[in-house]
Amino acid sequence: MAASRLAHARPFGQHIATPEQFRAEIGLQHARHPPTSRARARKMRRMYFQTFGKFKKMLGQLDKWLEAAEAHAKAKSFDGNVFLGLRLAPDQFAFARQVQTACDTAKLAASRLSGKDAPSHPDTEQTLEELRTRVRAVVAYLDGFTAKDFESAATRVVTQPRWEGKTMSGADYFIEHALPNFFFHVTHSYAILRHNGVGLGKRDYLGTLSLRAP
Amino acid sequence: MAASRLAHARPFGQHIATPEQFRAEIGLQHARHPPTSRARARKMRRMYFQTFGKFKKMLGQLDKWLEAAEAHAKAKSFDGNVFLGLRLAPDQFAFARQVQTACDTAKLAASRLSGKDAPSHPDTEQTLEELRTRVRAVVAYLDGFTAKDFESAATRVVTQPRWEGKTMSGADYFIEHALPNFFFHVTHSYAILRHNGVGLGKRDYLGTLSLRAP
Repeated sequence: MAASRLAHARPFGQHIATPEQFRAEIGLQHARHPPTSRARARKMRRMYFQTFGKFKKMLGQLDKWLEAAEAHAKAKSFDGNVFLGLRLAPDQFAFARQVQTACDTAKLAASRLSGKDAPSHPDTEQTLEELRTRVRAVVAYLDGFTAKDFESAATRVVTQPRWEGKTMSGADYFIEHALPNFFFHVTHSYAILRHNGVGLGKRDYLGTLSLRAP
Repeated sequence: MAASRLAHARPFGQHIATPEQFRAEIGLQHARHPPTSRARARKMRRMYFQTFGKFKKMLGQLDKWLEAAEAHAKAKSFDGNVFLGLRLAPDQFAFARQVQTACDTAKLAASRLSGKDAPSHPDTEQTLEELRTRVRAVVAYLDGFTAKDFESAATRVVTQPRWEGKTMSGADYFIEHALPNFFFHVTHSYAILRHNGVGLGKRDYLGTLSLRAP
């Protein structure tokens, strides 16, 4: 029954055998029916705007985890700034750098996909309070965006020094790099605190849900 | 300069003061200009399809991390299935349940947003190999989807037992719940392996990038 529906459709897996096929299917470029209109542009820019809205919400949660780490240290009478050097493996980033990288991933993705300059943050934070200031600076930066800023996001050419001259389209960069990296560093920040006794739970991770009464 | 551009636009933060405003701005529902056309439906279903493509890619990476865990255990002459019970904090899920929950988050989100039945997986895995089978079953399930399956995703009514009768719209559920939860459990799976000596790096997390030659 599902099989008969799929017989004339192209199943998911076949579409993404190559990045080109994937991009074609999702209509980012090289589409069989090329983008024709401002409707396409509106569609794409809203998608980016929506996801940066989610990044902003996650950074707001991260700010609360930092506050919880401070409170935990105070309750246990130790220096909360010890958290900044903790890590889950000797060859992974320490907590401070996980937070800094989560911030930079959101900030630089918004900048690269909009063409707007990003504020510089030189990674000099030495305390939980300074990390909170950093997080709030990125939230404030994201506050300055509107959906229109992401109008050309999908087709921008993105690069960074470690790619040694290679580039990605904005669309590929966002889904393959910025989105998973942002959640990687936010989740590692959370996991390091949990591993070291800070009392957080899934609700602190997700934040408020738009639940509707029955 | 940026300020003058923004003077007549509505900055990012103001849009999402309430979930209703946020949804209105991104056009999911209650939009000032209500959705008028099949173009809107195509837009939305592609967004979901694209993100499930990313979930599928991440599950493919997770399968490789499980393989690396097996190889690591073999090289160190210990029973690799020990990994299934490891956890980062005593009140967090153990590794097996992190993997199972990552699988279920992807599977159930695809099912709930499409209305298609999901296969049942009763959480009986006892070995790394059985976890790999579980992961591959979900990849195969996602293979059966096309963009068209997500046509009504945004406006579906989603619920689950722990919400005690409350509901979310498909759009809210996806961005507020499924997306962050999926990355939460995938990243915790990765972090538990890294914490316990398995040699993984960011490339193993991200998978292949669509980089273009200069």
